[in-house]
Amino acid sequence: MSTLPRIAFLGTGLMGDPMSRRLLKAGYPLAAWNRTRDKAEALAAAGAAVADSPADAVRDADVVITMLTRGDTVADVLFAQGAAAAMRPGTVVIDMSSIRPDEARDHADRLKAMGIDHLDAPVSGGTVGAAEGTLSIMAGGDPDLFERLRPVFTAMGRPTLIGPSGSGQIAKLANQAIVATTIGAVAEALVFAERAGADPAKVRDALRGGFADSRILDLHGGRMIARTFQPGGRTSSQIKDLENAAAAAASVGADMPFATLAMGLFRDLLAHAGDVDHSGLWIEIDRRSREG
Amino acid sequence: MSTLPRIAFLGTGLMGDPMSRRLLKAGYPLAAWNRTRDKAEALAAAGAAVADSPADAVRDADVVITMLTRGDTVADVLFAQGAAAAMRPGTVVIDMSSIRPDEARDHADRLKAMGIDHLDAPVSGGTVGAAEGTLSIMAGGDPDLFERLRPVFTAMGRPTLIGPSGSGQIAKLANQAIVATTIGAVAEALVFAERAGADPAKVRDALRGGFADSRILDLHGGRMIARTFQPGGRTSSQIKDLENAAAAAASVGADMPFATLAMGLFRDLLAHAGDVDHSGLWIEIDRRSREG
Repeated sequence: MSTLPRIAFLGTGLMGDPMSRRLLKAGYPLAAWNRTRDKAEALAAAGAAVADSPADAVRDADVVITMLTRGDTVADVLFAQGAAAAMRPGTVVIDMSSIRPDEARDHADRLKAMGIDHLDAPVSGGTVGAAEGTLSIMAGGDPDLFERLRPVFTAMGRPTLIGPSGSGQIAKLANQAIVATTIGAVAEALVFAERAGADPAKVRDALRGGFADSRILDLHGGRMIARTFQPGGRTSSQIKDLENAAAAAASVGADMPFATLAMGLFRDLLAHAGDVDHSGLWIEIDRRSREG
Repeated sequence: MSTLPRIAFLGTGLMGDPMSRRLLKAGYPLAAWNRTRDKAEALAAAGAAVADSPADAVRDADVVITMLTRGDTVADVLFAQGAAAAMRPGTVVIDMSSIRPDEARDHADRLKAMGIDHLDAPVSGGTVGAAEGTLSIMAGGDPDLFERLRPVFTAMGRPTLIGPSGSGQIAKLANQAIVATTIGAVAEALVFAERAGADPAKVRDALRGGFADSRILDLHGGRMIARTFQPGGRTSSQIKDLENAAAAAASVGADMPFATLAMGLFRDLLAHAGDVDHSGLWIEIDRRSREG
């Protein structure tokens, strides 16, 4: 069968909008719904049908993609607002939101009881990766289902099946914890270098290609040196992810001292500087250094 | 003048040996000295003259390279053991050891009073980078002197002049602090993933190319997954560098909470598992997780 599956995309915000556009560009029929309707309507010109409610969006869909802020938002849209009840049996829900692994498994179980399949498939790569179709997609769920949906994923990025339901969210939390701590490492190193009298831009140049090199040193280190802290990746999102990581780590008895430290510093950053880009952790380390 | 400057290499151990071989391969006449003489003698077959003492090694040298463990060892070899006194005026000392910035400036001042030039030029990239001639070289000192010595540096790696005397050591401490914390970030993320039931090798694969990607995730993450913790970069060296970073940071009022956390954990690792590769921080995070 050569007809592409029909997709319902629930949550067409900062990330969902460019991801939807990649799917439309790849030829998928797509119905868009967003809580703030004008964000869904922005996709009409690219060929999306705009739906009035989650239930309306999913009624004729083969695949339902959710890209929402939190686990309870996903549950609200799927269950309280009646999206799952409006799906035909055999529909596949791909939840690309970043939520807790236990929430993902709970959603999978509740959908299975209604005859609906589920994959968790959170992403890394930000709005740039979403627009370019180069997102890292970390999936959890049934391997056959994953393979069947591979072309849908490939339209948005590079998918990896980690393991059973919830595993995608585990990988995403590992990803976020590493990102948060690496931002902290780069921030304190650049603050130190500058206070010690070395040009932080030259230090960053010298470190490129060595063992300290990373995507964070490149991109976020550049923002720290230029003092450009517009999001990007919000501090509030970073805190949410670190709180989810802390809860998940506690539930399996994993010690995450670096992520715990980062969580505290990002909370201080939010209190002192507002919801800036997460590279703004530089501001908090600099502030702490000045106050001594 | 086409004659290459004569080099004396003091400290031909784990790093100094392959660095000396790069210089010999590039055609530099080279006298080698090492505290344990057989390590210098290993270079004779590659064309090095083997010296009996630091003073013997440097007597005819235009450039003296020191690659030693600590700042007080460098001072001992240069001043107590009489190397500096045996140098002709106009000789250049390139100290490629990783020592404190204030020690580097002190050595530069003392040598200057004797008519000897000095550059601090610590490296990053490990034994592999030393053997391949791809070290990141972070230099501090006079720009004209740096340019004059550029061919010597280029035989060993990629040099960047950071700024005045001591700046190379500042960049190196920034480098080491980032390396130590990134190792911690990767270690705790992989311990978490495994305890949460996800295959850490697949998590690492999924994270490659995303914002969590780094040289450390690649190389040291691989060692963590394979449980191969032979040095490589020793835990004891990591602790020395973090102690130097802590001292330098305190002297300029820079807050380094992540490096401080890493220093404590590496000390615990040394106490519990011995002087393993620094990727062995995984062992310590795993141990803490098991003990709860």
